[in-house]
Amino acid sequence: MDYAHQQLKREKVFRDPVHNYVYVKYQVILDLINTTEFQRLRRVHQLGTTSLIFHGAEHSRFAHSLGVYEIARRITESFQKNFPSIRPGDGLWDNSEELVVLCAALLHDIGHGAYSHTFEHIFGTNHEQITQDIITSESTEINHVLQRISPDFPRQVASVINKTYPNRQVVEMISSQLDADRMDYLLRDAYNTGVKYGTFDLSRILEVMRPYKEGICFEMSGMHAVEDYIVSRFQMYQQVYFHPVSRAMEVVLNRLLKRARVLFGATTQNEPSTPYLLLPFLRGDFNLDDYLQLDDGVLNTYFIHWKRYPDDILSSLATRFIDRKPLKSVKYDKSTENLLPRLREIIEQSGFNPEYYTATDNSFDLPYDAYTPGKKQIELMQDDGSLVDLSSVSPLVTAISDRQTGDNRFFFPREVLRPEKNVDLFEPEYEEFKSHIRNGKLIN
Amino acid sequence: MDYAHQQLKREKVFRDPVHNYVYVKYQVILDLINTTEFQRLRRVHQLGTTSLIFHGAEHSRFAHSLGVYEIARRITESFQKNFPSIRPGDGLWDNSEELVVLCAALLHDIGHGAYSHTFEHIFGTNHEQITQDIITSESTEINHVLQRISPDFPRQVASVINKTYPNRQVVEMISSQLDADRMDYLLRDAYNTGVKYGTFDLSRILEVMRPYKEGICFEMSGMHAVEDYIVSRFQMYQQVYFHPVSRAMEVVLNRLLKRARVLFGATTQNEPSTPYLLLPFLRGDFNLDDYLQLDDGVLNTYFIHWKRYPDDILSSLATRFIDRKPLKSVKYDKSTENLLPRLREIIEQSGFNPEYYTATDNSFDLPYDAYTPGKKQIELMQDDGSLVDLSSVSPLVTAISDRQTGDNRFFFPREVLRPEKNVDLFEPEYEEFKSHIRNGKLIN
Amino acid sequence: MDYAHQQLKREKVFRDPVHNYVYVKYQVILDLINTTEFQRLRRVHQLGTTSLIFHGAEHSRFAHSLGVYEIARRITESFQKNFPSIRPGDGLWDNSEELVVLCAALLHDIGHGAYSHTFEHIFGTNHEQITQDIITSESTEINHVLQRISPDFPRQVASVINKTYPNRQVVEMISSQLDADRMDYLLRDAYNTGVKYGTFDLSRILEVMRPYKEGICFEMSGMHAVEDYIVSRFQMYQQVYFHPVSRAMEVVLNRLLKRARVLFGATTQNEPSTPYLLLPFLRGDFNLDDYLQLDDGVLNTYFIHWKRYPDDILSSLATRFIDRKPLKSVKYDKSTENLLPRLREIIEQSGFNPEYYTATDNSFDLPYDAYTPGKKQIELMQDDGSLVDLSSVSPLVTAISDRQTGDNRFFFPREVLRPEKNVDLFEPEYEEFKSHIRNGKLIN
Amino acid sequence: MDYAHQQLKREKVFRDPVHNYVYVKYQVILDLINTTEFQRLRRVHQLGTTSLIFHGAEHSRFAHSLGVYEIARRITESFQKNFPSIRPGDGLWDNSEELVVLCAALLHDIGHGAYSHTFEHIFGTNHEQITQDIITSESTEINHVLQRISPDFPRQVASVINKTYPNRQVVEMISSQLDADRMDYLLRDAYNTGVKYGTFDLSRILEVMRPYKEGICFEMSGMHAVEDYIVSRFQMYQQVYFHPVSRAMEVVLNRLLKRARVLFGATTQNEPSTPYLLLPFLRGDFNLDDYLQLDDGVLNTYFIHWKRYPDDILSSLATRFIDRKPLKSVKYDKSTENLLPRLREIIEQSGFNPEYYTATDNSFDLPYDAYTPGKKQIELMQDDGSLVDLSSVSPLVTAISDRQTGDNRFFFPREVLRPEKNVDLFEPEYEEFKSHIRNGKLIN
Repeated sequence: MDYAHQQLKREKVFRDPVHNYVYVKYQVILDLINTTEFQRLRRVHQLGTTSLIFHGAEHSRFAHSLGVYEIARRITESFQKNFPSIRPGDGLWDNSEELVVLCAALLHDIGHGAYSHTFEHIFGTNHEQITQDIITSESTEINHVLQRISPDFPRQVASVINKTYPNRQVVEMISSQLDADRMDYLLRDAYNTGVKYGTFDLSRILEVMRPYKEGICFEMSGMHAVEDYIVSRFQMYQQVYFHPVSRAMEVVLNRLLKRARVLFGATTQNEPSTPYLLLPFLRGDFNLDDYLQLDDGVLNTYFIHWKRYPDDILSSLATRFIDRKPLKSVKYDKSTENLLPRLREIIEQSGFNPEYYTATDNSFDLPYDAYTPGKKQIELMQDDGSLVDLSSVSPLVTAISDRQTGDNRFFFPREVLRPEKNVDLFEPEYEEFKSHIRNGKLIN
Repeated sequence: MDYAHQQLKREKVFRDPVHNYVYVKYQVILDLINTTEFQRLRRVHQLGTTSLIFHGAEHSRFAHSLGVYEIARRITESFQKNFPSIRPGDGLWDNSEELVVLCAALLHDIGHGAYSHTFEHIFGTNHEQITQDIITSESTEINHVLQRISPDFPRQVASVINKTYPNRQVVEMISSQLDADRMDYLLRDAYNTGVKYGTFDLSRILEVMRPYKEGICFEMSGMHAVEDYIVSRFQMYQQVYFHPVSRAMEVVLNRLLKRARVLFGATTQNEPSTPYLLLPFLRGDFNLDDYLQLDDGVLNTYFIHWKRYPDDILSSLATRFIDRKPLKSVKYDKSTENLLPRLREIIEQSGFNPEYYTATDNSFDLPYDAYTPGKKQIELMQDDGSLVDLSSVSPLVTAISDRQTGDNRFFFPREVLRPEKNVDLFEPEYEEFKSHIRNGKLIN
Repeated sequence: MDYAHQQLKREKVFRDPVHNYVYVKYQVILDLINTTEFQRLRRVHQLGTTSLIFHGAEHSRFAHSLGVYEIARRITESFQKNFPSIRPGDGLWDNSEELVVLCAALLHDIGHGAYSHTFEHIFGTNHEQITQDIITSESTEINHVLQRISPDFPRQVASVINKTYPNRQVVEMISSQLDADRMDYLLRDAYNTGVKYGTFDLSRILEVMRPYKEGICFEMSGMHAVEDYIVSRFQMYQQVYFHPVSRAMEVVLNRLLKRARVLFGATTQNEPSTPYLLLPFLRGDFNLDDYLQLDDGVLNTYFIHWKRYPDDILSSLATRFIDRKPLKSVKYDKSTENLLPRLREIIEQSGFNPEYYTATDNSFDLPYDAYTPGKKQIELMQDDGSLVDLSSVSPLVTAISDRQTGDNRFFFPREVLRPEKNVDLFEPEYEEFKSHIRNGKLIN
Repeated sequence: MDYAHQQLKREKVFRDPVHNYVYVKYQVILDLINTTEFQRLRRVHQLGTTSLIFHGAEHSRFAHSLGVYEIARRITESFQKNFPSIRPGDGLWDNSEELVVLCAALLHDIGHGAYSHTFEHIFGTNHEQITQDIITSESTEINHVLQRISPDFPRQVASVINKTYPNRQVVEMISSQLDADRMDYLLRDAYNTGVKYGTFDLSRILEVMRPYKEGICFEMSGMHAVEDYIVSRFQMYQQVYFHPVSRAMEVVLNRLLKRARVLFGATTQNEPSTPYLLLPFLRGDFNLDDYLQLDDGVLNTYFIHWKRYPDDILSSLATRFIDRKPLKSVKYDKSTENLLPRLREIIEQSGFNPEYYTATDNSFDLPYDAYTPGKKQIELMQDDGSLVDLSSVSPLVTAISDRQTGDNRFFFPREVLRPEKNVDLFEPEYEEFKSHIRNGKLIN
């Protein structure tokens, strides 16, 4: 039998706390899971610094990737059972697409690395591009496995992930407002953080999901389940992904890597604290193999060494990160941003270099799935076959779509609010600083 | 107010997926959590190699330690509400013990390190002794925080953990057949693996738990809840803790560290692959500070380097561990152990050094909570105040107590069962090897 | 000890699927539960005709009443622990109110009867008035139990339920936008219907709930939990309480009771089908004792007899109700209500008396908890103690508050859409009827 | 299309709290659900008097029957997908059996009536025989629907239920140690009572279940899931089904019906309290139609009337039943049964007729699924295809199988333990009575 259709003698099941089981019947899927690149995902947390705030959220991109695969598997199974294509162009499901969907679902995050969001900001890497590279580069085990299906198969899988694959149904299963990726991460992050608002009715959504000519839509009878998914997603962003302390830890990490680049960018020394595996990135000259050596533990190992490095800023930031000592933050807006220069001045007087110990950010700087009617969103199919946009029938969804403003925060060292007893020299500045904070916001 | 009674202005809550919330009201508890030694537990998986089999089980000893604290907190709250001591010696609960219980619960696992079980086997460390050291040594932040309660307080906390504390109620809350530690790990491991058999009715058990003169017992009305806990524990051992593939990965890790000791035990080289933080252990000369630098990520970082090290055994074992390529295993017993020498011979002929690529173990080599009537076990209090042992009223528990035999397994490289096509040279030996395996057991 | 403080020797626990356990420590609460009036609630479904659509929703008002009691108990316990009043007028919780709260919570629905909503429409009873009567009338066991606390106690309990009790904290615990009653029914109805959208985080809400001078408010840190409760409530209304088939079964019941009044209002016959216990209501001359004889099973017993009664309308409606044969319905609005007379005409031509076989209603005719900013709603307390209305900080809640329009439906016999084969006489009318329906709505 | 294969235009889904959804695609299944006989099951509680102890357990036989259908549907779906028969006699699944399985699953309890267990004891009805009659008698709607499949189809469905159907796979799906019926009732009763011990891993069991020549067996890899089911079942019996207060309420009901037969067996009076629908049973001359008029509400309606009937025993027993005033009970055994005559004597002296106010029973008088190795039980299939009995590999199951003794109880009026103050006449007897009770057991 050819490799594309080669099934395991016995279906393999992985216990999964979110989906109960993940089912694998194709040899190629098992082979992909067993590659070194895929196993690496076990060592990359799904939520990065968020696990420092929600201590249960220690799950990996490995678990999430299996989960996305499993949801995609259930969708294709349902489509094949209920909406099998009879003839080309009928807008129904062509099950010869099954394998490309399953592989793309499994591999969609294969390019994610340690603390992706911050890492990319500092080093200019791009996990989406790296995902493409891992799949299409001949140097990876992933590529070798996919090639066994057909020489062009790696490119096809990659094109599903970068959304250029011609069949929109396939693309939207993996990337759309309501896709296998988002459904898994919301459920999995909710499960592991313990934040209950993130749950929604997956089995109902899978039931009302259906193919049509332009992609994927949902039956009107499932409107409430879809609406509930959008509300849950909104709530997870408000409560988990935009959490101010998590953002504060990202600021610390950002500053730490920035300082490391200054100190080690040109190093040639062989010392215990030399970040060998990071050097290509600190020097701005890395390749795919370099990237694949990294994981959360590797970075943390350097940070542990750096806690004792003879540079005050590096050691202090490493200690803040490893021992979880977040910066403090307050909200500000147009009317109060004028205060920031003066606050930075006070911070500098207290002995903290503002370049390394302060920051501003807006929650919308994080990747956010706003539901914005206009571009293609979620379509519902009525009894007579016509389609309507979800936001046109759901006031809840409309309300969420309209919430366009993010949350601006100014980050600073906690010490500025709790001066040591012997530094009364700066008492007036401390008082001034505090006088500008009320109910968590800056005030004039 | 003195530090022992100093409460937070606002109770601090940690979201927890198992207990919903963990509540902290004492400043000392929050200070302990914020120490570097306690934060290190975030970087140590609760279940070591088991997460390579149950991919959801990526939770840390940090989360478990908070969970044990929370259960202990609920027990003391319930005891103080329902069974407050009126006068010394009445066998009821003296709430001046609250703080020592909470601290001991939080810190009971503070000495655990990376892959504890295997690490201890190879390097002769002892996590229980290290727990004592971390608490009582003046060099740790933990000790400094505890000292603020009273100079003798660290020793008191340590003595609860090593079971020499005079009040048996306090000791049994942390260490007994049905203690806060076991209750949390069973629930948390079940939650994260997704194995449903591990759950039991915590709130019911807390309700029927009560102090008496000799320690802690349970009201007869709660017999079924306690019985169910014992059954759940048995099931978790059978299904998770004794899982043969998890034990196979432990064997790989064991052989890998053994090989590293041979290669790096006397090294003086400064190379990228030098395991700096492991050297004190490889050399057999380490101190507490050395131990506290280690975590899972540090070890994995060395293993990643070693995948490319120019020693075949080290690089092959590192690859097997990092890329999750477990050894295969079969059960054997008295009647078949005679086969092992011949099987090892075949394996050696296939090019695998049996010292590094085979092993035997018995599931009971793992730490196992057998319920063995005789020594103090679980006592139930009848309506008239008399006590009976659980096993005397529960046939289920008796059945489990009687199951005394472990599960012997022989581990070997998977390659021996699936020879490459071009090695027909050894065909007869492969066939011989296979002929001795049936239904997962060795047969003559 | 006086009866008000008399505690059970051993706290009594009731297993509850929603709250796990319901805890009773006061003798008076147990005595109230054991009265004939309270036990009657076991025989009255919580959701009436809704159980004919959601077959799991067979729970009783008895279970709900225990649940409301349990939530109120947890609230008072939390208030007493965290916000105990120090001196009169400090706006904190005065625990001498505990007992009146618990009794009012337990008894708030004691006046509910069989199929309350429809029964009240037809017979002019009022369950709120009857609740007051059961508590304050000297003829009931409930009253006798309450009297043992103090002669004025029944009146106090009744005044909490009718919201005239002076302490607003007490009143709002039982009756407000976010009270023990609503919290229990949403959770319980969600649990039993299996509709997951109805769940919210009860323990978190109880944690952020607090007393203040004007009643009860919530800490700002709990904003998301409160918001989620409002969203869940909205979703339960949309999906369960306003379900069109449930409303259709209510229409059948309404018509059936209406017909029974015509036929039996003046009966003096002693027949098997005589609805003895209903006669006082059919005649418009009933007392409290008459009311307390009724339950769902009594009404159904008459309906079972009536399936064979020699009046076509009564027997047909009884059969439709008992054998669950709902009327069909379509939505209509201002632009299409002009069609209704013609549709009724067609229905009459088909042999169905429109008075008994058609109806219109609006979902807002059902008792609906709209969240309408303006009157006292849900207040959040900020860090500095100031209060804000929930809708001013939550766009989700604002969206729901704005959704002011109900859902108008026209009900008619299903047979009009599926004519028997031999009635081709009326074919054109059937076609005309169908031509006005599309996507579940009337169209011109 | 013929009726047997006629599918609904759109699959119908019923929300179910236990299985999430119940899926119906065949017209015949929907038609069976809509019969008057099946709708009657809505008015019969699944657990009879048990709901008086576990207040959440108010679910009906209707919900259970749908659940059994749904599990059977999933089993056949899985068998058809994974084990489709290739040729007759290959021991795999022949999907032409699907419809007879689904109908038998749905209808297996159709003959259950109000308070079946007690009702049958008193009136000599037999719900299993009535199930056969409802299916095969030409007078029922059920029979008419089934006849449309084929004239012989009703008999086939009935023979599956009475276990004479030739295909053992079909029979064992509905009736065996691990069948759709038991799986649904354990899960559903656990869900509604709130007793957590009753849950097990349904999806895992469905996965390892497979057909073979002699019926149904389970793959060895699912041993733990099957073992857990047996343990859960044991726990539900111990905690719920054998609950002494539930048995006490059954005793009250038994005595009440016995008294009613004495009083109304020969009545010819037309009174409000005449139990018209019960008369055929009280007289010992009933037919199927009589039986189908009854439900829990009908019986309760008579009991409500009888609370005021001028016979002390009838009215007292009716009040005890309707207002839930259970008899008290104690355990006894061979060594203490000699006390019973003297205890009955004391009870009689207290004014209670022992014939109506005392009873003995053994929990094993209730229908009990003991796991008794020897007759066909649960078979596990090993890797090489051979079968072993579950109890031979599971010490837990062996332990349960060995527990052969039931729990003997003596029931008596609670008043005997709490004499009214003014009856000091009998003080010595009360004291004597009490002196024989300790820790819930009789003692000499």
